Amino acid sequence: MSKVFDYAEVAKHNTAESCWVVLYGNVYDVTNFIPEHPGGSKVILQLAGTDATEEYDPIHPPGILEENLKPEAKLGTIDPDTLPSAEKSPVETGEAVQEGPVDLENLLNLDEIEEVATKQISHKAWAYYFSAADDLGSKNFNNQVYRQILLRPRVFVDCVKCDTSTSFLGHNVKLPIYVSPAAMARLAHPDGEHGIAQACERYGAMHLISQNASMTPEQIVADATPGQVFGWQLYVQNERHKSEAMLARINKLPAIKYICLTLDAPVPGKRELDEKSKNVASNLPTPSSVQGSGSVSTTSTDAKTPAAPKAMGMGQSLFWGTAADLTWKTTLPWLAEHTDLPIVLKGLQTHEDAYLASLHAPQVKAIILSNHGGRALDTAPPAVHTLLEIRKYCPEVLDRVEVWVDGGIKRGTDVVKALCLGARGVGIGRGALYGLGAGGTEGVARVLEILKAETETCMRLLGVERVDQLGMQYINTRAVERDIYDGPAALERPSLWAMAKAKL
Amino acid sequence: MSKVFDYAEVAKHNTAESCWVVLYGNVYDVTNFIPEHPGGSKVILQLAGTDATEEYDPIHPPGILEENLKPEAKLGTIDPDTLPSAEKSPVETGEAVQEGPVDLENLLNLDEIEEVATKQISHKAWAYYFSAADDLGSKNFNNQVYRQILLRPRVFVDCVKCDTSTSFLGHNVKLPIYVSPAAMARLAHPDGEHGIAQACERYGAMHLISQNASMTPEQIVADATPGQVFGWQLYVQNERHKSEAMLARINKLPAIKYICLTLDAPVPGKRELDEKSKNVASNLPTPSSVQGSGSVSTTSTDAKTPAAPKAMGMGQSLFWGTAADLTWKTTLPWLAEHTDLPIVLKGLQTHEDAYLASLHAPQVKAIILSNHGGRALDTAPPAVHTLLEIRKYCPEVLDRVEVWVDGGIKRGTDVVKALCLGARGVGIGRGALYGLGAGGTEGVARVLEILKAETETCMRLLGVERVDQLGMQYINTRAVERDIYDGPAALERPSLWAMAKAKL
Amino acid sequence: MSKVFDYAEVAKHNTAESCWVVLYGNVYDVTNFIPEHPGGSKVILQLAGTDATEEYDPIHPPGILEENLKPEAKLGTIDPDTLPSAEKSPVETGEAVQEGPVDLENLLNLDEIEEVATKQISHKAWAYYFSAADDLGSKNFNNQVYRQILLRPRVFVDCVKCDTSTSFLGHNVKLPIYVSPAAMARLAHPDGEHGIAQACERYGAMHLISQNASMTPEQIVADATPGQVFGWQLYVQNERHKSEAMLARINKLPAIKYICLTLDAPVPGKRELDEKSKNVASNLPTPSSVQGSGSVSTTSTDAKTPAAPKAMGMGQSLFWGTAADLTWKTTLPWLAEHTDLPIVLKGLQTHEDAYLASLHAPQVKAIILSNHGGRALDTAPPAVHTLLEIRKYCPEVLDRVEVWVDGGIKRGTDVVKALCLGARGVGIGRGALYGLGAGGTEGVARVLEILKAETETCMRLLGVERVDQLGMQYINTRAVERDIYDGPAALERPSLWAMAKAKL
Amino acid sequence: MSKVFDYAEVAKHNTAESCWVVLYGNVYDVTNFIPEHPGGSKVILQLAGTDATEEYDPIHPPGILEENLKPEAKLGTIDPDTLPSAEKSPVETGEAVQEGPVDLENLLNLDEIEEVATKQISHKAWAYYFSAADDLGSKNFNNQVYRQILLRPRVFVDCVKCDTSTSFLGHNVKLPIYVSPAAMARLAHPDGEHGIAQACERYGAMHLISQNASMTPEQIVADATPGQVFGWQLYVQNERHKSEAMLARINKLPAIKYICLTLDAPVPGKRELDEKSKNVASNLPTPSSVQGSGSVSTTSTDAKTPAAPKAMGMGQSLFWGTAADLTWKTTLPWLAEHTDLPIVLKGLQTHEDAYLASLHAPQVKAIILSNHGGRALDTAPPAVHTLLEIRKYCPEVLDRVEVWVDGGIKRGTDVVKALCLGARGVGIGRGALYGLGAGGTEGVARVLEILKAETETCMRLLGVERVDQLGMQYINTRAVERDIYDGPAALERPSLWAMAKAKL
Repeated sequence: MSKVFDYAEVAKHNTAESCWVVLYGNVYDVTNFIPEHPGGSKVILQLAGTDATEEYDPIHPPGILEENLKPEAKLGTIDPDTLPSAEKSPVETGEAVQEGPVDLENLLNLDEIEEVATKQISHKAWAYYFSAADDLGSKNFNNQVYRQILLRPRVFVDCVKCDTSTSFLGHNVKLPIYVSPAAMARLAHPDGEHGIAQACERYGAMHLISQNASMTPEQIVADATPGQVFGWQLYVQNERHKSEAMLARINKLPAIKYICLTLDAPVPGKRELDEKSKNVASNLPTPSSVQGSGSVSTTSTDAKTPAAPKAMGMGQSLFWGTAADLTWKTTLPWLAEHTDLPIVLKGLQTHEDAYLASLHAPQVKAIILSNHGGRALDTAPPAVHTLLEIRKYCPEVLDRVEVWVDGGIKRGTDVVKALCLGARGVGIGRGALYGLGAGGTEGVARVLEILKAETETCMRLLGVERVDQLGMQYINTRAVERDIYDGPAALERPSLWAMAKAKL
Repeated sequence: MSKVFDYAEVAKHNTAESCWVVLYGNVYDVTNFIPEHPGGSKVILQLAGTDATEEYDPIHPPGILEENLKPEAKLGTIDPDTLPSAEKSPVETGEAVQEGPVDLENLLNLDEIEEVATKQISHKAWAYYFSAADDLGSKNFNNQVYRQILLRPRVFVDCVKCDTSTSFLGHNVKLPIYVSPAAMARLAHPDGEHGIAQACERYGAMHLISQNASMTPEQIVADATPGQVFGWQLYVQNERHKSEAMLARINKLPAIKYICLTLDAPVPGKRELDEKSKNVASNLPTPSSVQGSGSVSTTSTDAKTPAAPKAMGMGQSLFWGTAADLTWKTTLPWLAEHTDLPIVLKGLQTHEDAYLASLHAPQVKAIILSNHGGRALDTAPPAVHTLLEIRKYCPEVLDRVEVWVDGGIKRGTDVVKALCLGARGVGIGRGALYGLGAGGTEGVARVLEILKAETETCMRLLGVERVDQLGMQYINTRAVERDIYDGPAALERPSLWAMAKAKL
Repeated sequence: MSKVFDYAEVAKHNTAESCWVVLYGNVYDVTNFIPEHPGGSKVILQLAGTDATEEYDPIHPPGILEENLKPEAKLGTIDPDTLPSAEKSPVETGEAVQEGPVDLENLLNLDEIEEVATKQISHKAWAYYFSAADDLGSKNFNNQVYRQILLRPRVFVDCVKCDTSTSFLGHNVKLPIYVSPAAMARLAHPDGEHGIAQACERYGAMHLISQNASMTPEQIVADATPGQVFGWQLYVQNERHKSEAMLARINKLPAIKYICLTLDAPVPGKRELDEKSKNVASNLPTPSSVQGSGSVSTTSTDAKTPAAPKAMGMGQSLFWGTAADLTWKTTLPWLAEHTDLPIVLKGLQTHEDAYLASLHAPQVKAIILSNHGGRALDTAPPAVHTLLEIRKYCPEVLDRVEVWVDGGIKRGTDVVKALCLGARGVGIGRGALYGLGAGGTEGVARVLEILKAETETCMRLLGVERVDQLGMQYINTRAVERDIYDGPAALERPSLWAMAKAKL
Repeated sequence: MSKVFDYAEVAKHNTAESCWVVLYGNVYDVTNFIPEHPGGSKVILQLAGTDATEEYDPIHPPGILEENLKPEAKLGTIDPDTLPSAEKSPVETGEAVQEGPVDLENLLNLDEIEEVATKQISHKAWAYYFSAADDLGSKNFNNQVYRQILLRPRVFVDCVKCDTSTSFLGHNVKLPIYVSPAAMARLAHPDGEHGIAQACERYGAMHLISQNASMTPEQIVADATPGQVFGWQLYVQNERHKSEAMLARINKLPAIKYICLTLDAPVPGKRELDEKSKNVASNLPTPSSVQGSGSVSTTSTDAKTPAAPKAMGMGQSLFWGTAADLTWKTTLPWLAEHTDLPIVLKGLQTHEDAYLASLHAPQVKAIILSNHGGRALDTAPPAVHTLLEIRKYCPEVLDRVEVWVDGGIKRGTDVVKALCLGARGVGIGRGALYGLGAGGTEGVARVLEILKAETETCMRLLGVERVDQLGMQYINTRAVERDIYDGPAALERPSLWAMAKAKL
């Protein structure tokens, strides 16, 4: 029988030399784990000697504790009567501020849902979701570029029927809209990724699960219906065996139909809002992303696994351990060794890379044009630019692989424009998380309901019945096309391909 | 002799099982009508057991009650002494807030008139008039695109004379400006559509009557002078016999010179402001446009007459029953069976459709380039774009049919620019309604007075005496022309026409 | 000896039937003059029975009273002791609000001078100066278009010397900057146009006198130094004999070197701010410019001298009587009959008209590209556009006549850019009036001092010593050139000229 | 032994006739120096009879006093007990307002550092640093033009290694970022230019020392490490012997590797904010830059050494004595006589001048494209424009000389974009000064730390390991290229070069 501790006893172990924490009623000695914590040592030390459950729970999937701590680290249980009454303010705890039930039907568009979610969720969660690289230029442009495109409605067309169904990689879905991989859903709502999956089921939408989900893949797909389509996002780890173990786990889940390899964020972008949010929670100054590269030293140029910084934003801590050494030549064969699932490459931002990816069909079955929601590199091009580049310089890509896009989608008209440009589907990241924040599973469902209805209205008013009928004749892209890249690679196509293939 | 009821007795029948209302002093049992109400059941149930006259009157033309209720539904009359004193606030009733007489002569432009009308009319009416699709992008761009065009005044031209008269379909008018079909004028002012007609008469302007007018066509044209020109707007109903009956009625009114078939809104646009305004009036959450397409089901893709949603914005309720299955092949012949009047097609937004329409001359005598005031599909092109497309790809259209435009006109310079581009006339929708809201018939007259004076000043300063002298040499459209569509249809013109004709 | 009246006696004659006013201590019976007043009857009736000197003085040059009233209208003098003490607020009187002496040296640019003048002068004067047509689009664009042009400074050039002197029509001046004709200078400051002339003298700048000056030409040029250069602006009157009389008067003033015929405002533009300012002064609703064209009638299309409206903005009242029937064929020969002075044509806004004007050299020696400070027709092109049009389509114009520009100049860099584009000089209108408002003669001098210094700094930093060295190699106009007109006349140049000459 | 004075005695000598001041505890009679003071007589007279140390110290390097005053001007020392207690407010003294220690690690980007520095430093210092010519158009555009350029990240590239090292003129540095010459660092912080040098040492960055530094070159480089790279900026003086003496001094400092000759500001720009800041300090009206060119006189066009104005902004006073007569033909040979160091020409703004400079290799080894931080001529082109011009019209320049750029750099992405365009390095001016203001040496280090980290992140996300791999294929400049100059020189290249060479 396990030992029972008084809170006063736990509270004494609040240093790096002896660091205890209470989690889910158990008392752990995490002293030895401090230097290994992916999120940095500082965040643990801030909670040393306290009940850390509220901080820990929404950002760690079950099982992580057991994976990382040796059995002897568990010292016993806490006497609940000795726990101090919870007096932390919502801001301190980083917990959601519930303002009473939200009437989702009164929220008519994704901006309104974001507005409500912003009030409902904790500042820390909001900062993590809302943040993007540097000055948020790409994040904002991702959306605005859709507004630069005009629609061309045809009239006198029977538009009684309207069918938004399509397929991804041969799997039928009811919507050309899918949920993009976005981390830490339980920060927004306890329903978490499972709730997203449930909402997707209701609308026949595909769900691409984040590797950094706050629930395990098994939990997320637990209630999947037959025919429901999932993908799983992979960030390859420096410790490849960890990634291999995850792939083995995923291979056993038949609901997951493909592996999506994220390429647009081999190192974390600079999300200042996310970094700053830690300060709000802790009232302590924290070393920032900037310090990661520190003063001039040789370590920053050749250290394969840099020491984790003392503390950092959530976005950075999630990146800890992610491999930055992936290449066309080495990574795809390695993947083929560990899974037979088709590969989707996420984060392509140039027509050159789209072309290179297309040379890897059929292992690669789809590519996702994405700048990581503007979170990786500010002033990176929006997917619309890359799509127009592909149409201009190597349209054959569209025949060889499916092209999906994400970033900036807020309206059904945005969805339709992307499809007209040749995208097979569009991903929604923040939208789904804000839906979750606004109303849990029902909030995500509301997001999908709104986008589906807007997409149908747009298709009908264009005079289009099926998504496969959408095409360039339904949009006017003049205002965007004059901004598309026409630099050296484009001008010297043969040498481009030579150069490009040299990288293979 | 009819029975006389106490209000207390009426008030008991306030449920879906037994629903009575008082209208114009009569008591009706509308229980059986609830599921058939085009505006949805909810709005009736909110008024169940009350005197609904104030709500009902401004949005229903006379005769509708008798058309829809069986004689036995009229139970008797109300004892007026038993009616509760009116305590509803203007916001609750949706009625106009009168702020004393407006000095119209101090209102110098359409923006000032809109500003005054916004204060004068009810929030609900304002929301209905002001609203447009999604983010109001097309609504705003409709106006701004005129500001992108520069004028080219010629000097040393005798400009003493200035004549704004022209003709539509061979009928002489004094102004190239007409009033566009806009619904529910009595929401703005009791003078309603009759008042608009009177103001048009004073300035020799054409009036195109909305099918959703709050007065009957007969009432509206009642005081027409010889030579006054009207058109009548048709939304074809799913129940074609209703449309046929209306056409038969219109055929009997000699003041009405043509039928204008609206094509740009086969399904309602998403006007969130309008939807939300119901909430203001009722303080109750209401299902929105989004719910109309509901969760995934086969009904949304093939149901020809979907069940009316429980409640909706005014814009949506007006659309209830409108046919979405019109086509070039079937609808024009059907129209020819039911009227000999010339046909004007409203809502064309591409040069392809303009070209197709021109192939239907002489039955089709004019087309109206319009995006429905930005109320149907957001980011649809403004009429100026479509006009420039026609000039570029199929200028012969301008010889075959008259081309009218609407959307965004606020200044005489806008009128002149549209005429220079080749439009025969320009329609004013919201402007006339705001005029009505600001001052009834006199307010509409003030709108026409302002636009006429501004148009004359502009013509004089350009050095132009007659509207038929206006042309492309008087405007600089460089800033707009670089944004005009030049996509596949335009590039492959023969196949375009093949494709286009295939739709006929 | 003249009769002396008590104020109480005068006060009784305050109706249209018997209307007396006191002016400069004299009592006049103006009853018969009321219908003839160019400014409308209303403004007189508002002052009937009072001492109108404060209202009358700043907007009427001396001598006007005697010209318009018969001797017997002067009834006598007022007993000053009977005059009520002045209790009118500055707003009521329309007089300037003096806020103590302004330290002009602390005002570093024209915006700061405008800011101070706006506080110093009456609202009515400000509204008249500040106002422009419709939505002020052209007024603002006049300035912004200069900011679209980039400079190209050359380095390693000896810039110790810098000489801003040039010549207009062969007359040497020290500055390429002149004061444009702007009406009613005494509204801003008692120094009036004479003060402007004095300031111009100090900086060797040319002064182009407005026909609507608040002082007589003789007064304005009274203290001219030898070599000082003046022009005189002519608005041809419907009553030609009045214009002929003025020309005869001007011909006698050797300081005036040319006649500037204004062509860009044959009818007044719509200056809403100016119209509204009357309301502020009178607290009475006033008929507006819009009413001028009234309801539909034949009079508006053929009346050569429409009845003056009851009341109007200052801008409109100044236009009263101006001829709208000028033509190339008739007006220039008529002018030649009445003056031997060279003619400068002001208000050209297209390259076609610039070309036509150049065909009238040598009678026409210069043209002024101007849209009347944005006061005539909103969205008319700025002078920079017209200058680029000329350079593109008919650069020979620059050889045949001098090309001056005005509108939007606020900085020395603007001056230099206009000269680089080929302008011989640039006119300052509002800037001079604001200078006058800020500090009388010294304020105008400060405006010229600032612009001269900024122009010199710009020339030096470009590496240019003399204004004749400025040229297209010193500016980058890419952002403007893509907006220049390239419509039909430009494309079909031969037919353009045919058409153009047909107008001669 | 020197005489000791009471403050009361000093205070009597407060006029132009007898003017004493206390500096660092000594009493000086500066009466004879007043007319020679580069900063004007007024600023001295304002301090006459007082202890001027606080005003004098931060803007004068040591040794200046001795250079300019004869020994006998030093009268003795002040009795410190007689000095009045310091009662001046920070605003009066122009001294920095210290608000407690700044946590530099919480400042995540250069905007935040500017914000903190703005609060920390005196208004006068802020106005001097922040100010730019006229309306700050070029200053702002310098930064915005980088935002118009999109990046093109490549994926599937091993980005573990990242090396920002490069070389300038053959000298190795760790960063492609250097500190631009910016005057008067001690206004921001007592660490001054020495602090900047120390921070540069820590990050291996080059430091280009301003001629107008508030410390001597010897002091600045005093603690330089071997391999640390400095340049020294020269403003040639009208009194050439002074410049020659400085060059002789610089030649003796081995840490200084080159002479940077500034060409973009032969006369001071108009920095209104800087001018106005004097008023804040003195509460006295001061003649402005405008007065410098005064009324029309021959002196302004041929006076080689105009009399110093009575008072002026700091920017102007620093320019006093600077030669405006430099030329390609005379200045470079003169320089060759006085130094063997390589020459860097700063302030080129056209491809013509870049080409001319390249003809002077190898004496000229690098050019700096710069518009002086927008401080010289407003609407001058940003370095990005000039770089694109060079690429378009004379790319051979990039082979002949190193091209450096400055102006507008705020982000690592800006640095990378400049390098992609062909720049070898980018200079940071205001950024370093704001860093100094925010935290002295540590603040400058923080600025470099941030920029280095951002640059690395950007390079990694582009998939680039070394700076020499950056090129046009990594950026999309369409939005900028359409604005690049394509005027006469570019079109007629042979004659351009003829003309250009004629200037040599």
